[in-house]
Amino acid sequence: MSAPLFRRMAILGLGLIGSSVAQAARRGGLVEEIAGFAPSPRTRARAQELALCDEVCTTASAAAADADLVMLCAPVGAFGGLAQEIAGVLKPGATVTDVGSVKMAVIRDVGPHLPDGVHFVPGHPIAGTEQSGPDAGFADLFDGRWCILTPIGGADDDAGHMADRAEVEALARFWRGCGSNVEVMDPHHHDLVLAITSHLPHLIAYNIVGTAADLETVTQSDVIKYSAGGFRDFTRIAASDPTMWRDVFLNNRDAVLEMLGRFTEDLSSLQRAIRWGDGEALHALFSRTRKIRRGIIDAGQDAAVPDFGRHATPKSD
Amino acid sequence: MSAPLFRRMAILGLGLIGSSVAQAARRGGLVEEIAGFAPSPRTRARAQELALCDEVCTTASAAAADADLVMLCAPVGAFGGLAQEIAGVLKPGATVTDVGSVKMAVIRDVGPHLPDGVHFVPGHPIAGTEQSGPDAGFADLFDGRWCILTPIGGADDDAGHMADRAEVEALARFWRGCGSNVEVMDPHHHDLVLAITSHLPHLIAYNIVGTAADLETVTQSDVIKYSAGGFRDFTRIAASDPTMWRDVFLNNRDAVLEMLGRFTEDLSSLQRAIRWGDGEALHALFSRTRKIRRGIIDAGQDAAVPDFGRHATPKSD
Repeated sequence: MSAPLFRRMAILGLGLIGSSVAQAARRGGLVEEIAGFAPSPRTRARAQELALCDEVCTTASAAAADADLVMLCAPVGAFGGLAQEIAGVLKPGATVTDVGSVKMAVIRDVGPHLPDGVHFVPGHPIAGTEQSGPDAGFADLFDGRWCILTPIGGADDDAGHMADRAEVEALARFWRGCGSNVEVMDPHHHDLVLAITSHLPHLIAYNIVGTAADLETVTQSDVIKYSAGGFRDFTRIAASDPTMWRDVFLNNRDAVLEMLGRFTEDLSSLQRAIRWGDGEALHALFSRTRKIRRGIIDAGQDAAVPDFGRHATPKSD
Repeated sequence: MSAPLFRRMAILGLGLIGSSVAQAARRGGLVEEIAGFAPSPRTRARAQELALCDEVCTTASAAAADADLVMLCAPVGAFGGLAQEIAGVLKPGATVTDVGSVKMAVIRDVGPHLPDGVHFVPGHPIAGTEQSGPDAGFADLFDGRWCILTPIGGADDDAGHMADRAEVEALARFWRGCGSNVEVMDPHHHDLVLAITSHLPHLIAYNIVGTAADLETVTQSDVIKYSAGGFRDFTRIAASDPTMWRDVFLNNRDAVLEMLGRFTEDLSSLQRAIRWGDGEALHALFSRTRKIRRGIIDAGQDAAVPDFGRHATPKSD
């Protein structure tokens, strides 16, 4: 364990990700002291019981004051308000970052509130489970996963905040210390990549579970009982936090609508193949999709125990 | 271990399911002797090497001759041909069953070929992985999973085959011996239930992986690298056997099109909510879908290590 990268870290939001960041930062000895904030008294009390932070604060400003690293870990819809609230107490030279699943909207909502001399380096760890809340966090959530940083312009951006090399590198070291691989990416490209690899999969999963719940010919108990044939995996994804995901879709609208449009187009063509009994078209697609799977296994991005199952209830048999 | 339920069992098709059935039947001491058949010489050679059966036959008829239980374990599109081929050698009093993912089409394709005095009890074990071939099978694939039997009418059906209580019960005992829970269901209802719990999830998974592969703005390497955010689970499903799944969609057309129609309708409404920024509608659906997940966990149908991951490549980190 080397010297801490930051003296005081503030974690604003103590759900699955905030709680995991606190535990991973501790595990790696990455910061000297952690101040946490959550708007809900229940979450704060639980964070206290779990001893997630050195200090659990009742306001975001109290946590952010004097912090060298401030990480926004709330649903992205709350980021603008949080940034506005803490702007006045931010220490010159502090780094503000986040873990939001969208990046253009975060830059739009957070950037304008931050004072000169504060470094803003948006980030996104690609890790999670379908669980929520402080109890769901664990120290190794980020191990072997990617964390994407989307620094703005690399130099001064429009609002005059420096996001220079040193601060980006310090944050990258923080995430590596949490077990992640780090990649720097353009924020617009990030939003496109995540729209197809994460946002659309979640939308589709939520949608099919909703469709299944509304059937008249098949009961909910049938669906639950016979879910092992594929449906079960969708329910896991569709159990993710509703507020977080509402905010993702509201804040990555254009990219999601673009990917959704292509998905629907392709699905119509599959529907037509089924209706007209075009077995060749079906077989051709079903063979092609195996290749991407192979790539994921080769890239070591397949987990024998998927994230989503890691903390699931053990099988009853 | 009690006395075997059948003397000779013929398994026609030695892929993931056929291979697993052979191993589970052996494990449970459920049959005295297993004869296997696969059309491909390579599969037959591999089955021989793995010693899956007591006898690996080069024709379906050779395997089925003198068998007390004949199980069709090929893709459902091959069932009609197989039934026609073995019809002449079937022993009076033998039970013919299958493991196909659709049941109405199997009854349509297989029933007419079977001679009087042969019992036809269609079946479907709800278990699998994304792997294919004889090497993919394992003895505990069916443990704790459901197997659905869809006997025809309970008495003589149109073609005059008896599917009486004793034969259904013997087959149910066989599947229980393989570790399954057994449920008897109307075949039409089976096809509806599976259309939503298995066929539509597979179709959607195949579709989104195809959509992702065709993007110009996001590379395949981006998709692979950042797949942990949800997409990865879809690729696992979309790696399933193309021939098997082509046959499923061609043979459960009406039920799949019905479910797909509802899914698309619901998806359009979600799309509209995203376009118009209707956060309440999104949040309402995303909250509702958590309930079904809860039901699956409560019913013990959630696996800490999902079937689909059980034999996957171990995580690299």
